[in-house]
Amino acid sequence: MARLPRIMICGNLVWAHEDAKQLFNGIADVILMDSQTRADFLANLKAGGKYEGTVGIYRHNTSADRIGVFDKEIIAGLVPAGVKWIAHNGAGYDQIDVLECKAKGINVSNTPGAVDDATATTALYLLISCLRHFSYAERSLRALTWKKPISAGATHDITGRTLGILGLGGIGLRLAHLVHAFPMEVVYYSRHRNPDAPEWCRYIENLDEFYKASDVLSVHVPLREETVHIVGEKEIRKLKRGSIIVNTARGKVIDEDAMIRALEDGHLSSVGLDVYPNEPAVNPRLLEFPQNALLPHMGTENQDSQRKMEVRALTNLRDFLKEGKGKDLVPEMKSKL
Amino acid sequence: MARLPRIMICGNLVWAHEDAKQLFNGIADVILMDSQTRADFLANLKAGGKYEGTVGIYRHNTSADRIGVFDKEIIAGLVPAGVKWIAHNGAGYDQIDVLECKAKGINVSNTPGAVDDATATTALYLLISCLRHFSYAERSLRALTWKKPISAGATHDITGRTLGILGLGGIGLRLAHLVHAFPMEVVYYSRHRNPDAPEWCRYIENLDEFYKASDVLSVHVPLREETVHIVGEKEIRKLKRGSIIVNTARGKVIDEDAMIRALEDGHLSSVGLDVYPNEPAVNPRLLEFPQNALLPHMGTENQDSQRKMEVRALTNLRDFLKEGKGKDLVPEMKSKL
Repeated sequence: MARLPRIMICGNLVWAHEDAKQLFNGIADVILMDSQTRADFLANLKAGGKYEGTVGIYRHNTSADRIGVFDKEIIAGLVPAGVKWIAHNGAGYDQIDVLECKAKGINVSNTPGAVDDATATTALYLLISCLRHFSYAERSLRALTWKKPISAGATHDITGRTLGILGLGGIGLRLAHLVHAFPMEVVYYSRHRNPDAPEWCRYIENLDEFYKASDVLSVHVPLREETVHIVGEKEIRKLKRGSIIVNTARGKVIDEDAMIRALEDGHLSSVGLDVYPNEPAVNPRLLEFPQNALLPHMGTENQDSQRKMEVRALTNLRDFLKEGKGKDLVPEMKSKL
Repeated sequence: MARLPRIMICGNLVWAHEDAKQLFNGIADVILMDSQTRADFLANLKAGGKYEGTVGIYRHNTSADRIGVFDKEIIAGLVPAGVKWIAHNGAGYDQIDVLECKAKGINVSNTPGAVDDATATTALYLLISCLRHFSYAERSLRALTWKKPISAGATHDITGRTLGILGLGGIGLRLAHLVHAFPMEVVYYSRHRNPDAPEWCRYIENLDEFYKASDVLSVHVPLREETVHIVGEKEIRKLKRGSIIVNTARGKVIDEDAMIRALEDGHLSSVGLDVYPNEPAVNPRLLEFPQNALLPHMGTENQDSQRKMEVRALTNLRDFLKEGKGKDLVPEMKSKL
C-alpha cells in the first residue's frame, strides 16, 4: 500500500482536531507541528525528519510564537520538503510572504467568508460603544461612580449617522448590512465598485469626498505594503471634527501617531480598536482617552466562527489533495506576478 | 389681555429649553420648577405661590432628587392648583402614581416611540457583549493582560442564536428588527400577539415554551405591581443552561437574588444589565462575574434621543393646551378603572 501524503497542523486547531483526522481519512495522514523553535522546524522538514512528506499545511497565526512568520527562510525550507498548499486559518495573511510562495509554486488560501460575520459584529460593537460612550459608562459603573463622568451631550444615536467603509470586501459588506437595520447612511470607498453592494450602499469614487462624508470611518483593507498607514494624518484630518474611527482590520493600516494627535486635539472624538500595530503590545496613550473602546483582537474569537474557519481551511486543503485545486486562493495567487 | 396658562418644566430639559419657550409662544408661559424641597414645591403650588396657574407639567425623573416621586401627596397638591396634564419624559413612568392621577382627573402621557431606538440599541450592545465576552475582553486589555482570561470556547456568534423577547412593545419590536439583520431567531411572549410583529418574529403563547426556546432573554415589560419579579427563580430555571439575560427595562422586574444564584451555579453564563432594583446602587455581587456587561442606566442617554423625547413630551403638552387633548396617554388612562 502506497504511503499517504501528509498534511501538517501548524498552530491552533481548537475545535476540529479529531474532525481533521476524520476529514482526511484515506486521503492524507494528519501530523502535528510540535517544534518549539524555528531551527527544529526547519531541520525536521528535511529528508528523514519527522515532517518529511508534508504536502499541505494548515496554518494558524499562533504558530508564529514558536517558529515565527512564514518568511523567505521558512518558505525555503518548505519547497524541498514538497509543500504545495498552505491553508491559512484567518482572513488576514500578512504573516505569510505570499509573493515568495507564489514564486516557489506554493499555493496560499485563507478563509475569507468564514470571518465576515464575527468581525463585522466586532466592528458594530465598537461603533455603538464609541457613539454612545458605553465602554466608558461600564468602567464608570464598575468604579462605583454610576454614570457621573458621562455626558449625554457628547453621545449620539447610531440611527441616521453616516458610516464610511474603507474597503468593501466581505467584512465591510457584512457590516453595511448590520448597520442598515438602524439605518445608518452607508458610503464606501474601494479600489473598484463592489457589484454585490446594494443600492443604499453608496460608492464614493473620490477619496476626499469619502472621508468628508463619514461620521464613523470603519477600516476593512488587508495589510499589504501599499496599505501601511493608508489612513494617515491627511486622511484623518479630512474627516469631520468629532468623528470616530473603528479598526478591526490590522493596526498598521492606520498611522497610530496621527490618530492619537487627533484624539488629543478633539478632531476625533473616540476610536474603537480591535487591532494594534505591535500586538499584543498596546500603545498606553490609547488608554488615556476614556471614551475609546479597545478590544484585544477579538474579531473572530468565538467557538462558532473559529470552528467555521477551521473547517473551511481544512476543506481547502482536502479539495487540493483530492482534486488538485482548492478554493479561497488569496488574490495575489490569482493575479499575474 | 387675558393671562396665559402656565406650564412647568419639572426636572432636566437639557436640549430644548429655549425651544420650549418658542414652542409655547402665545399658548402658555413656561416656568421652571426650582424648589429644592418637597415642602417648598407644595407650598408654591398654592394660591399666591410662584407655581400658581400651572395647568401642565413637563416631568423628568431627575426632579425626584429634589421633590421626590409623584405620589399621592404631590398629586394632592397638583389638583387644587389646576394641573390637568403631566407630560412625562421617558417610556417608564413608574415614578408617577398614574391611577391616583386618573382618579383625580389629571392626564399622564409618556414618550413611548421616542425611546425605542436608543433603548433597543443598548439591549443589542449588551447582547453582543455577553455572547462574545467583549466587556470582559476590554477590561483585560486595559489591565494589560491582552486577551489572556478570555476563552473562545465560552463565546458565541450572535447569528443563529435564539432571542426571546419578553414584552413586544415598541422597544422589543425595534430590538427584533436590529437582531434580524444577523439574523437571530426571534421569539416573543406578550399578553397579546402584537399585530405589528413580522412573520419571522414568532409568538409563543405558552410561557414555559417561550423560556425554553431562548438562548438570550431580553426583558421589555414596564414596571407595575404585577410585573415585579416577573422573571423569578422558576422562570430563570426554565431557560437553557448557559443562557444570557439582558435587561434594559427596570431592575425590579427580575428577582436579582435568583439571577445571582443562577450566575453562581453557571445556569446563566452572563447577564447584560442597564437597570437595577435600587439605582444608583448596584449589588456588588454582580461585579464579581467578569463576563457580565453592566451599564449605568444609559438606555436613552444620548443627545439625539433626549432631544427627540423632550420635543415629544412638550408637543404632547402643547397639543393638550391647543386642542384639549394630547397624544401618548399611558395605557392606564385609556382603560376603565
